[in-house]
Amino acid sequence: MRVYADISVSLDGLVAGPSPSLEDPLGIGGMQLHEWAFRLAAWRRPHGMEGGEEGPESRWVEEIAESTGAYVMGRRMFSGGAGPWDGDPNANGWWGEEPPFHAPVFVVTSHAREPLQLTGTTFTFVTEGVDAAVAQAREAANGRDVQVAGGGSAVRQAYELGLLDELQLHVAPVLLGAGAPLFVDATPSSLDLVETIATPQATHVRYRVTRR
Amino acid sequence: MRVYADISVSLDGLVAGPSPSLEDPLGIGGMQLHEWAFRLAAWRRPHGMEGGEEGPESRWVEEIAESTGAYVMGRRMFSGGAGPWDGDPNANGWWGEEPPFHAPVFVVTSHAREPLQLTGTTFTFVTEGVDAAVAQAREAANGRDVQVAGGGSAVRQAYELGLLDELQLHVAPVLLGAGAPLFVDATPSSLDLVETIATPQATHVRYRVTRR
Repeated sequence: MRVYADISVSLDGLVAGPSPSLEDPLGIGGMQLHEWAFRLAAWRRPHGMEGGEEGPESRWVEEIAESTGAYVMGRRMFSGGAGPWDGDPNANGWWGEEPPFHAPVFVVTSHAREPLQLTGTTFTFVTEGVDAAVAQAREAANGRDVQVAGGGSAVRQAYELGLLDELQLHVAPVLLGAGAPLFVDATPSSLDLVETIATPQATHVRYRVTRR
Repeated sequence: MRVYADISVSLDGLVAGPSPSLEDPLGIGGMQLHEWAFRLAAWRRPHGMEGGEEGPESRWVEEIAESTGAYVMGRRMFSGGAGPWDGDPNANGWWGEEPPFHAPVFVVTSHAREPLQLTGTTFTFVTEGVDAAVAQAREAANGRDVQVAGGGSAVRQAYELGLLDELQLHVAPVLLGAGAPLFVDATPSSLDLVETIATPQATHVRYRVTRR
């Protein structure tokens, strides 16, 4: 089993555009970072949508999901940018009644909350930080991989805490110019390329993290 | 003919590490960005060194050089970080008597200077900025491509001035953490992936710049 981060970034290293809002949680232009996924059958199926491209990229996304036994995410990824259950204590995240994970998800938050059971996915809210969430996810993954799914802050913290075995980036062919950078004064390290798939929509790279 | 930038960056988008100096012009760790090239026959030959890896990556580097009719670079790339010919008016750049270009090179600088003819390469010093240097290079390239070869500031200016048809990045598998970013508040744009080659040493991506 390995702990890996999985996140989409722009060519200028941003995970969201400028001026994020409740209506536009990824900021101006930020949705472009994820367009590579929306068209894939492997993304559409778990999101309850039909059709989409099959082929190597889609199969690869499917294999990643199959190898993953638990997820860790930040609070804003769960809530879509909103102060999540402040207004609505039963907020279910922005995926609706059947989230795409079909695996335990650990949400890092400062607001304690009872676990949320939806169809196929249980969200557990962890108030002790990213390291505690990753530890719980490792336990729950039952030998399969743990994905730190975003946002940028959760991935950055996991990296800085030395929790990541691998870093998987989906680099979208877009310059956003301003917004939220993935890496900010990162601890230097060298990485080993594990695999890569490139399409016009994104360059997918997976690296093993080797701390210097 | 096309005008393209060609530059090596870290995974966190930096073209040099922290604390650059005369002894270490690429800053701490910055040399790692270029290690992918040093091992290639296509890099070693024009630098007067024997051996090196042949193969698709090396052939690709060779094809790029063959298709390029003129180069543009910043003053610090020419001088290796030094105030170049302030102390030594005849400073020849840091490549020695036979630079690897074998084509006209236009150096953007604020210090006027007579052209410098070395074996196979003439350096022309342009004090009217990146746009003037690119214009002169287009003329000199005689129908072949123009490469904006770095550093980050020259590439960034060429991009912001809308002079780049293509952007070619060599992404080294390293996080430098601090140093000189390639993109700073870039004008947003979307790009089209033209080609990519990945090896453990670098992910090479070539994009066509499409201004939004």
